[in-house]
Amino acid sequence: MPEFLTLLPPLEARQNLLDNFTPNLESETIDTQSALGRVTAGPVTAPFSLPSFARSTVDGFAVRAADTHGAGESLPAYLNNVGEVPMGGVPDFGIEATQCAVIHTGGMLPEGADGVVMIEYTQAAKAGEIEIMRAVGVGENILQVGEDVKERDVVIPAGSHLRPAEIGGLMALGIKEIATVRPPRVAILSSGDEVISPDEELNPGQVYDVNSYTLSALVQQHGGIPVQYGIVPDDAESLKAEAQSAKGTCDLVVITAGSSASTRDLTAGVIDSLGKPGVLVHGVNVRPGKPTILGVCDGVPMIGLPGNPVSALVIARLFVAQVIEAMLGLETPPITSSISATLSINLSSQAGREDWVPVQLQAGENGYVAEPVFGKSNLIFTLSRADGLVRIPPAANGLAAGDVVEVQLM
Amino acid sequence: MPEFLTLLPPLEARQNLLDNFTPNLESETIDTQSALGRVTAGPVTAPFSLPSFARSTVDGFAVRAADTHGAGESLPAYLNNVGEVPMGGVPDFGIEATQCAVIHTGGMLPEGADGVVMIEYTQAAKAGEIEIMRAVGVGENILQVGEDVKERDVVIPAGSHLRPAEIGGLMALGIKEIATVRPPRVAILSSGDEVISPDEELNPGQVYDVNSYTLSALVQQHGGIPVQYGIVPDDAESLKAEAQSAKGTCDLVVITAGSSASTRDLTAGVIDSLGKPGVLVHGVNVRPGKPTILGVCDGVPMIGLPGNPVSALVIARLFVAQVIEAMLGLETPPITSSISATLSINLSSQAGREDWVPVQLQAGENGYVAEPVFGKSNLIFTLSRADGLVRIPPAANGLAAGDVVEVQLM
Repeated sequence: MPEFLTLLPPLEARQNLLDNFTPNLESETIDTQSALGRVTAGPVTAPFSLPSFARSTVDGFAVRAADTHGAGESLPAYLNNVGEVPMGGVPDFGIEATQCAVIHTGGMLPEGADGVVMIEYTQAAKAGEIEIMRAVGVGENILQVGEDVKERDVVIPAGSHLRPAEIGGLMALGIKEIATVRPPRVAILSSGDEVISPDEELNPGQVYDVNSYTLSALVQQHGGIPVQYGIVPDDAESLKAEAQSAKGTCDLVVITAGSSASTRDLTAGVIDSLGKPGVLVHGVNVRPGKPTILGVCDGVPMIGLPGNPVSALVIARLFVAQVIEAMLGLETPPITSSISATLSINLSSQAGREDWVPVQLQAGENGYVAEPVFGKSNLIFTLSRADGLVRIPPAANGLAAGDVVEVQLM
Repeated sequence: MPEFLTLLPPLEARQNLLDNFTPNLESETIDTQSALGRVTAGPVTAPFSLPSFARSTVDGFAVRAADTHGAGESLPAYLNNVGEVPMGGVPDFGIEATQCAVIHTGGMLPEGADGVVMIEYTQAAKAGEIEIMRAVGVGENILQVGEDVKERDVVIPAGSHLRPAEIGGLMALGIKEIATVRPPRVAILSSGDEVISPDEELNPGQVYDVNSYTLSALVQQHGGIPVQYGIVPDDAESLKAEAQSAKGTCDLVVITAGSSASTRDLTAGVIDSLGKPGVLVHGVNVRPGKPTILGVCDGVPMIGLPGNPVSALVIARLFVAQVIEAMLGLETPPITSSISATLSINLSSQAGREDWVPVQLQAGENGYVAEPVFGKSNLIFTLSRADGLVRIPPAANGLAAGDVVEVQLM
């Protein structure tokens, strides 16, 4: 079988694709509250320092630290309580030597105070006098101005995913709108004369479209906007017309071929006819998904996926998701969610080929056990029975029962 | 410090909360295409078998397997080509002894055929005759009716998360609408006299609300619907009135306390006044987040979170997310996305207490290195500098540099 020697491994195939187009990062400004999962289009700088005033981190008494030196349970310091710091306001008094004031967590440190004694180490002595039973150092139990972020600091770099923590941080700075990268529009075309829309009645010999829907969901999960072009008849004219239209309005065009070899050649031909350089990779050394086609037409990446539902979804994770991530301008690739598990059985593989095996995870005594889900790649429900995928690297001849593997969650 | 001995560890505190209310799982039927991430309200059964007709898994010739017995390169079998199976249709011919027909991947097996010979092992002989150079067994290269799923099989159990594979599987069965669990509505109330909305102008001593936004985003991530009640003044009357209203229209009420002890007591008092059994847990043996309050009022769970942004988010992952998951009726708890990493330094911890330490992940030669991000828990941007959290279990006195830890991604 000399064929596989000429096929690129997935990582090289992907790099070839990524090297042949330049993501066109457009920015769109949206409400920060709606920006969960979006990616910053530029660095975000702090309009003011946080905290913007020195705050207490505990409930207690604001003091001049020097007044507490040497204080202890057997020899307390006695300070005069001159007031209470109002929450959300500015104290209308300062602290001078031998004075203190009631302060709550988050309250503004009064002028002259440079430490806070926790309430647990104090008690009321005679009227207006507080016993301080522990010394504090300068700055103790205080958040200084700018200790969190300083005015003009970059608080979120360009190309960062916005998670709950970042959304909150932006609001803390009063940044209610944020420039994010416009999510790429991903055209999804299904071909195959036997494939019909679930809106139609199924006749013998026909099957309902699956890939349009799995791929749309996957595109959404990875931050793109799916644009469904529906089912295109299996002829060069129709496919070319639809792909041309998709290329004009979308950032990435994904075509799932019918499952026979002739329709795959059709896809390759159409990609070659739509612009330069055309097809870059025809066939990848991976299972499932060998008949994958990668190309670029006049700057728009085009991906031809195998028609088998399992292959289409596995390959889309390797190529479609990665192109979307490149188009989002992520500074660091997202850390793939995975979990370690012990493989339940031996898995053989052809050296030189990368294999992706669907597995079920079972919680065992020593962590998870990964149990391969076998099924021809034409079976639609194979992946729905799986929790994740195990990669068998090209250099390996397989994996052994008992091996600890990283399962990429689906 | 005997106090921590009386505090429940997080897992027990959570169980106590979950034991004291019954999730009210309501079902809502939605478009399957919009159901990504939703949870099935009941088992889904197949309305018909998949495949619904016997299909070829390869390109080649449909044959009667018996006619190929003994066939090989040196002694081919010769069969008469009687036609081509139309894609998406029913062949208008059958296969009798010594006959064969062109069939494409996914094509319907003609009457009488029981195997398919791959095109690679055939060649045209004289007109209308095909040389078969390899024997096939009965059923070889065929997907039988129902081999994927059988009519009336449960294809997706109740309480399952819908992922791309399930969405596609449902569409393959023509199931365009699906009964899903109504996402729980989660009321979010922020208190604290120093806290104002980012819509207002910031005066000295005031801070913008953070927790309403981080918590809303977290609720969304876990499949709930956040309902923001905004900022409630720090007095029992106002808080009680708002919490009462929230309890009437939401499935879970989350109150982030002001940061001082007095406002936390306020939250506990309000929860106790709103219904039975009231406060179940006041204080959890965890850092950050010890002042957490858990309660149930007339069947509605109530969670009082610490006001510190870091504590609020860490604790929300432990309690708010889990209550939402219970309310979604997930059959198996979702597998938490995590990744193994090597700890860069020693981390000390108090035995008996569970600690959650924010870490940054750096890709190293032998996988990821987890570098703790230190910062007082009042610092808003601490978590935004972190990739995930490392748990130090209650039984441990800490973790050592070089330990392999599971980092829960944020």
